[in-house]
Amino acid sequence: MRLKILIINGPNLNMLGLRETSVYPQAPLERIVGAAAEYKYEMPVKVDHFQSNHEGELIDRIQDARGAYDLLVVNAGALTHYSIALRDALLACETPFAEVHLSNVFAREPFRHVSVMADIAFCVISGAGETAYTLAIIAGINLLKKKFKEKKK
Amino acid sequence: MRLKILIINGPNLNMLGLRETSVYPQAPLERIVGAAAEYKYEMPVKVDHFQSNHEGELIDRIQDARGAYDLLVVNAGALTHYSIALRDALLACETPFAEVHLSNVFAREPFRHVSVMADIAFCVISGAGETAYTLAIIAGINLLKKKFKEKKK
Amino acid sequence: MRLKILIINGPNLNMLGLRETSVYPQAPLERIVGAAAEYKYEMPVKVDHFQSNHEGELIDRIQDARGAYDLLVVNAGALTHYSIALRDALLACETPFAEVHLSNVFAREPFRHVSVMADIAFCVISGAGETAYTLAIIAGINLLKKKFKEKKK
Amino acid sequence: MRLKILIINGPNLNMLGLRETSVYPQAPLERIVGAAAEYKYEMPVKVDHFQSNHEGELIDRIQDARGAYDLLVVNAGALTHYSIALRDALLACETPFAEVHLSNVFAREPFRHVSVMADIAFCVISGAGETAYTLAIIAGINLLKKKFKEKKK
Amino acid sequence: MRLKILIINGPNLNMLGLRETSVYPQAPLERIVGAAAEYKYEMPVKVDHFQSNHEGELIDRIQDARGAYDLLVVNAGALTHYSIALRDALLACETPFAEVHLSNVFAREPFRHVSVMADIAFCVISGAGETAYTLAIIAGINLLKKKFKEKKK
Amino acid sequence: MRLKILIINGPNLNMLGLRETSVYPQAPLERIVGAAAEYKYEMPVKVDHFQSNHEGELIDRIQDARGAYDLLVVNAGALTHYSIALRDALLACETPFAEVHLSNVFAREPFRHVSVMADIAFCVISGAGETAYTLAIIAGINLLKKKFKEKKK
Amino acid sequence: MRLKILIINGPNLNMLGLRETSVYPQAPLERIVGAAAEYKYEMPVKVDHFQSNHEGELIDRIQDARGAYDLLVVNAGALTHYSIALRDALLACETPFAEVHLSNVFAREPFRHVSVMADIAFCVISGAGETAYTLAIIAGINLLKKKFKEKKK
Amino acid sequence: MRLKILIINGPNLNMLGLRETSVYPQAPLERIVGAAAEYKYEMPVKVDHFQSNHEGELIDRIQDARGAYDLLVVNAGALTHYSIALRDALLACETPFAEVHLSNVFAREPFRHVSVMADIAFCVISGAGETAYTLAIIAGINLLKKKFKEKKK
Amino acid sequence: MRLKILIINGPNLNMLGLRETSVYPQAPLERIVGAAAEYKYEMPVKVDHFQSNHEGELIDRIQDARGAYDLLVVNAGALTHYSIALRDALLACETPFAEVHLSNVFAREPFRHVSVMADIAFCVISGAGETAYTLAIIAGINLLKKKFKEKKK
Amino acid sequence: MRLKILIINGPNLNMLGLRETSVYPQAPLERIVGAAAEYKYEMPVKVDHFQSNHEGELIDRIQDARGAYDLLVVNAGALTHYSIALRDALLACETPFAEVHLSNVFAREPFRHVSVMADIAFCVISGAGETAYTLAIIAGINLLKKKFKEKKK
Amino acid sequence: MRLKILIINGPNLNMLGLRETSVYPQAPLERIVGAAAEYKYEMPVKVDHFQSNHEGELIDRIQDARGAYDLLVVNAGALTHYSIALRDALLACETPFAEVHLSNVFAREPFRHVSVMADIAFCVISGAGETAYTLAIIAGINLLKKKFKEKKK
Amino acid sequence: MRLKILIINGPNLNMLGLRETSVYPQAPLERIVGAAAEYKYEMPVKVDHFQSNHEGELIDRIQDARGAYDLLVVNAGALTHYSIALRDALLACETPFAEVHLSNVFAREPFRHVSVMADIAFCVISGAGETAYTLAIIAGINLLKKKFKEKKK
Repeated sequence: MRLKILIINGPNLNMLGLRETSVYPQAPLERIVGAAAEYKYEMPVKVDHFQSNHEGELIDRIQDARGAYDLLVVNAGALTHYSIALRDALLACETPFAEVHLSNVFAREPFRHVSVMADIAFCVISGAGETAYTLAIIAGINLLKKKFKEKKK
Repeated sequence: MRLKILIINGPNLNMLGLRETSVYPQAPLERIVGAAAEYKYEMPVKVDHFQSNHEGELIDRIQDARGAYDLLVVNAGALTHYSIALRDALLACETPFAEVHLSNVFAREPFRHVSVMADIAFCVISGAGETAYTLAIIAGINLLKKKFKEKKK
Repeated sequence: MRLKILIINGPNLNMLGLRETSVYPQAPLERIVGAAAEYKYEMPVKVDHFQSNHEGELIDRIQDARGAYDLLVVNAGALTHYSIALRDALLACETPFAEVHLSNVFAREPFRHVSVMADIAFCVISGAGETAYTLAIIAGINLLKKKFKEKKK
Repeated sequence: MRLKILIINGPNLNMLGLRETSVYPQAPLERIVGAAAEYKYEMPVKVDHFQSNHEGELIDRIQDARGAYDLLVVNAGALTHYSIALRDALLACETPFAEVHLSNVFAREPFRHVSVMADIAFCVISGAGETAYTLAIIAGINLLKKKFKEKKK
Repeated sequence: MRLKILIINGPNLNMLGLRETSVYPQAPLERIVGAAAEYKYEMPVKVDHFQSNHEGELIDRIQDARGAYDLLVVNAGALTHYSIALRDALLACETPFAEVHLSNVFAREPFRHVSVMADIAFCVISGAGETAYTLAIIAGINLLKKKFKEKKK
Repeated sequence: MRLKILIINGPNLNMLGLRETSVYPQAPLERIVGAAAEYKYEMPVKVDHFQSNHEGELIDRIQDARGAYDLLVVNAGALTHYSIALRDALLACETPFAEVHLSNVFAREPFRHVSVMADIAFCVISGAGETAYTLAIIAGINLLKKKFKEKKK
Repeated sequence: MRLKILIINGPNLNMLGLRETSVYPQAPLERIVGAAAEYKYEMPVKVDHFQSNHEGELIDRIQDARGAYDLLVVNAGALTHYSIALRDALLACETPFAEVHLSNVFAREPFRHVSVMADIAFCVISGAGETAYTLAIIAGINLLKKKFKEKKK
Repeated sequence: MRLKILIINGPNLNMLGLRETSVYPQAPLERIVGAAAEYKYEMPVKVDHFQSNHEGELIDRIQDARGAYDLLVVNAGALTHYSIALRDALLACETPFAEVHLSNVFAREPFRHVSVMADIAFCVISGAGETAYTLAIIAGINLLKKKFKEKKK
Repeated sequence: MRLKILIINGPNLNMLGLRETSVYPQAPLERIVGAAAEYKYEMPVKVDHFQSNHEGELIDRIQDARGAYDLLVVNAGALTHYSIALRDALLACETPFAEVHLSNVFAREPFRHVSVMADIAFCVISGAGETAYTLAIIAGINLLKKKFKEKKK
Repeated sequence: MRLKILIINGPNLNMLGLRETSVYPQAPLERIVGAAAEYKYEMPVKVDHFQSNHEGELIDRIQDARGAYDLLVVNAGALTHYSIALRDALLACETPFAEVHLSNVFAREPFRHVSVMADIAFCVISGAGETAYTLAIIAGINLLKKKFKEKKK
Repeated sequence: MRLKILIINGPNLNMLGLRETSVYPQAPLERIVGAAAEYKYEMPVKVDHFQSNHEGELIDRIQDARGAYDLLVVNAGALTHYSIALRDALLACETPFAEVHLSNVFAREPFRHVSVMADIAFCVISGAGETAYTLAIIAGINLLKKKFKEKKK
Repeated sequence: MRLKILIINGPNLNMLGLRETSVYPQAPLERIVGAAAEYKYEMPVKVDHFQSNHEGELIDRIQDARGAYDLLVVNAGALTHYSIALRDALLACETPFAEVHLSNVFAREPFRHVSVMADIAFCVISGAGETAYTLAIIAGINLLKKKFKEKKK
């Protein structure tokens, strides 16, 4: 059995490699996500990826993920800081998710220190650069294993 | 003559019945809206319904409602708390509207206590569950009757 | 069996009809409450009414309502914004209540946007004018029916 | 010579035993106050008690206490958090008083963490349950003894 | 024709002369109010006086003053700082009023710098001691003369 | 013996009569000050007047007033709200002063509710229009008489 | 060589001419933009225009503008006040832009005084009505000329 | 007929060309103002200029401008952020004015984001460098033309 | 069976008797703690005492108290106001504790009104002077008796 | 060559396994750190570990780490939220470090949402449970590899 | 070569010796400044002095100091707390300056804890009384020596 | 007779010379303190020095200083900003102390602008680099001389 994982990327993350390379990784998004998908985890995984600049499309996709995935890895970009609608979609999805940022948001402008979804994520990873999605999946697998054990009891 | 009424539902309200049933009604959105449409009001009404997870589509629809409806009933979901663009669309629409929430937002997280459109609504109803849309229409009919009387003078 | 309902009105609501008629309904309080009592609800109701300008008398009355009523409809007037003592009385009463305002408080001074009891009400209705008490009773009946069903199971 | 002590209880404390028994003691107020009156202190005491839901009556009673009592024990209930009028009555009374709460207000809603009279009390006791009034009297006797010694010098 | 004037004094002002004589005048309230009533103004006046420690009684009295007085002079004591109910009573009364404080509230605790009624008073006098009520009546007469002239035009 | 009194007017008060006549008195400043100088007080007074749009000139004048006047009446205009330098000049002058505003500043923009000198004034009069300076002098005479009596003892 | 300029208009600006004509210009958007395109500037310009009610479409268009335009003129409407995603798109675009508002946002509701993109614009023009886009282009040409000179050195 | 325009420059703007040339234009103030005076506008203009480091002199000059000019262009420098006295002078002057900043104040320290006069300006231009005064005059001419048309009707 | 009780005193409490005797009791710490240990309680007690100026030593001691004591009485001195590490130690200790202050912290500097551990204490006693530790033990015994009864059921 | 890595654990983390097991992992600290040390990374590592409840000892150890380690992994526990001294030690150490929390601090009390060192960490990992230290080392190795490449150029 | 130093004193410092002698030194300003001028420093100095109550004159003088002095010692008095115009003059002057206060401003009213120029001073000395100017010059000489050494390299 | 002076240095000041040399002096702490000890003051001094990274050790040392020193010079490093325990130790010590910072804390992060001990110091010196301790001793000697003179009277 393979874990089904969905990586969600929000606005402007399609510009990676072009955009502000002093702050963000220099590799394009596909390469970074690809590396996360092909990493050798403790368990086999199937990784899907979705990027959009549209809040509405992200919400639609998260709603569809309900019951279809075991884990979400969400880099909502700037929407992290104000999109309560995205938060509500993640709540309605009822699938554990990690909040991920490529740059360390706590070393940037104060409005990036606030997240409207961090309190409902199972973990937050900020600033791990190209390894960010991989780390989130490792943490997620650990979480799912623990939940699985608890159910067994 | 029938009053023309448009019910607008924002992001994630299409998940009703599935989503967090301890907070929200258990019936699906269609059933709740349908009940509001079929209620016996003091005056005959024609009720249309529009739901979207996209802020832009909601704005487009509200702009189109200008001059086409007598009353709007707006449950903007999470957009209530930050979408000033939706507020501006409601202002530009120049049609009286009620702000409606199925759950009592004042009993939830502090960021849900703030509305960027409550001050331009004619009334706000929070927490009436499945009867919310119906109550808003009753209040709206009362408002329109009073306006009608004043014009007559 | 008839539902027993108590409508509570706080300071200055006895001035309705006289007071600031651009903000408040022009009908006197008795007429508005009377209309709510005589409305045809889904279930038969018995409606009592109490108005006072004295916080202490309102607290006494709410304490007495414990176990004697199925539902409270509370328009605490200006006390809504600071009387934590009234909040405590409503908590001690342990009867579901709706918070009601005739004018839309969110369209008025900022200090009227704060309520010290909204989070313990089952619903908040702001700005429905003369229909306010009636709407609160409709919502309350719906709530009680749902509670009744749940108990049956 | 017996010390004359007045215990003052504010709004809703007459509901003790009935009200929210997970937060408050289960015994009725009379029993708790009675126990405090009959405790064996270092000095003989005469304890009077006054409870009211009316801010005005509490103020009247505190004004009358001026010169008539050696010590006040004040549980102002919710008025603690906003009644500056009660604060002024206590100032005008010029008798040392302890502020007392049965439940630990610091473990409850943030608005209960603020007291408008704590800075003029000689001591504040929060959360000692049924022993609260007794503790306040022990602390008060200690204070009065020290004052008495100082005067002697 | 004599101007009809009502002086209203709130909680603890009956303690004047006894209470904190470093902050407040040493004369009893009756003497201070009496002096204001007997002062030789530009126009003949009839001065009534009402003091209470009960917010509710103050509201009742202000409601009764509607249409019965030309001018109110209000020293609401500590209620100045939080009683929105008193503010609403003054609004409903629709009679011009001066807000008066014997001590200079701006030189005292920060919570006394806030008034919930100053913005609807025609004038605020803080710290004029025993002359406060007299000053308020002089200012009020000046206001009424100007209003009278404007009506004539 | 005549009391020596200095009336100080700050920026833009020389525009009275021209400027915003809905907010300010319609009479020019000279006339208003003149009326205050000629009023029949309990004691004979000698009133000087100084107006300037320059903070520095106002400070110079207040410094010169030290020891030369018994009483200052200060309408600092907009400087009231931020000129700590003026506050320091008033402190250094060590002469009692009243803070005066012709319009009721509490009924205007929030930044006019703050005064950086109110806490060191002996009284604050806001909104008494053309009678403002006269009222301040009456209050000041009362203060000086009391001080005089205390010295005698 | 002609300068390539893109004018971007956000939500509800398509309603110009219809919407709140006391606040906004009465001409439709096309006419105002057209006038800006045809103005005689110091240098020849080619002006494109894009309006959308969808945040996502605006972001897509700004990303596409990267390297394709010399200057952006951005009237983001209500999104100005909260869309950090739009800000990030403008950062990623790396093309100088002016922030423009037809009405003077500083004379409107406080939430319109905040811009999440003003600090990365080269200039902000608020309240110049129909001339706003033209002014922004004049300022932009001046900026580009200066940059061009600096490069030459 | 020529429009009479007064350009006002506040503290430290006489240092232009010397001062912080990374933030401000390198040309001296006279040259920048001169260019604005000689620009070819839609209508003939007569431009006067006044600079001072003294708040009081700026207020005097603005008071004198009342009725003598059709338009003011005000760059109050640092006084923009705290001089309510200047604001009051501009109110008393009753002539439309544009608030102008050479650098983009929104890209600088937070205390420069606040203006105590922006809400009473007809437009605010921040960051247009050497073209700032010219842009303000173009916007002002447009405003005056519109006002002229409205009067004609 | 004797109750095992640990009294913990934080930084500077070893200076009692020497330090600021207008604020604190004049007796040295040992005498005060000794009196609390020897008081006749309802149940026999064994009282240990630990004082340190080192946050780390206090944490070590509280960790060691886990399972070894029935009750803690904690006067953390200045650490009360900021040592979240101490809070965490008390949480990890899982033993009921009272927060105690000899002086009434609410009558002192504002930063002493904040406690980072009051919400997890079972009671807070502020200002009872030399009787403070004794009162805390009386309240603690009452708490333990109630818990014991509940377990029995 | 092996990377030298120091894992630092602050106050109360020695209680893991005992303490609040609903919030924290159930394994003792040694086991969790041991697993991180033995994980198969892309490069060979040598992992040291230091835990203390004393802020001063943690600072001493971090100072000693200067020049002795390639990477720090810091779980400062409660000191994260207020120990600016620890922040300064990390600055003085001039070695890259990751900030790590076992539980998701953003889902806990508001005071745990603030970190005084997150802005100088290269990455922050919150809520990854037992995998936290391992993830931090993976991210750190990635960072060091990139730095190494840049130096080579 | 002698260092050229300018001491600047703001509003009300000319009152020293007269004014509030419990807070300020008892010597007149000239004597204090004279002592600083005649102190034996490590290097020869030429000290000029300027005092004014006028913000504008202080700005003029600081502008003139540009290029004419090696060091400024600035005691801006109350202007320290709000005069951003003075801050800008100090920036434009581009000469290192020390901010000096005779009394310890941090032990006085909260509004004196804020300085709008401390962050651009090279040092701040608060509360050193009559030695303040001397200390500032010693620190300034040390700074200039270091700068001189660095240039030499 | 020699003055006994204790210089106290808090966390991380032992790193001087190594640590962030752009912010701090390049000399090691011993050299800087040594220079202060050997400076030729108006009076003979005996200077002791104590540095620690442990808050508890600093408190112990300050307590021991009570009665043993005439003057303290305290550079508490980062503890300045939050260690109320250190403040209390300084209060309990009852010896005058100067608060000293080598760098200008007001030019650094906002959290370094706050000191929890500045209001009880006799003077604060921020940013005087290597001369800081020397300046503090000069100011301290001046203070002690004045106190000595006052006692003599």
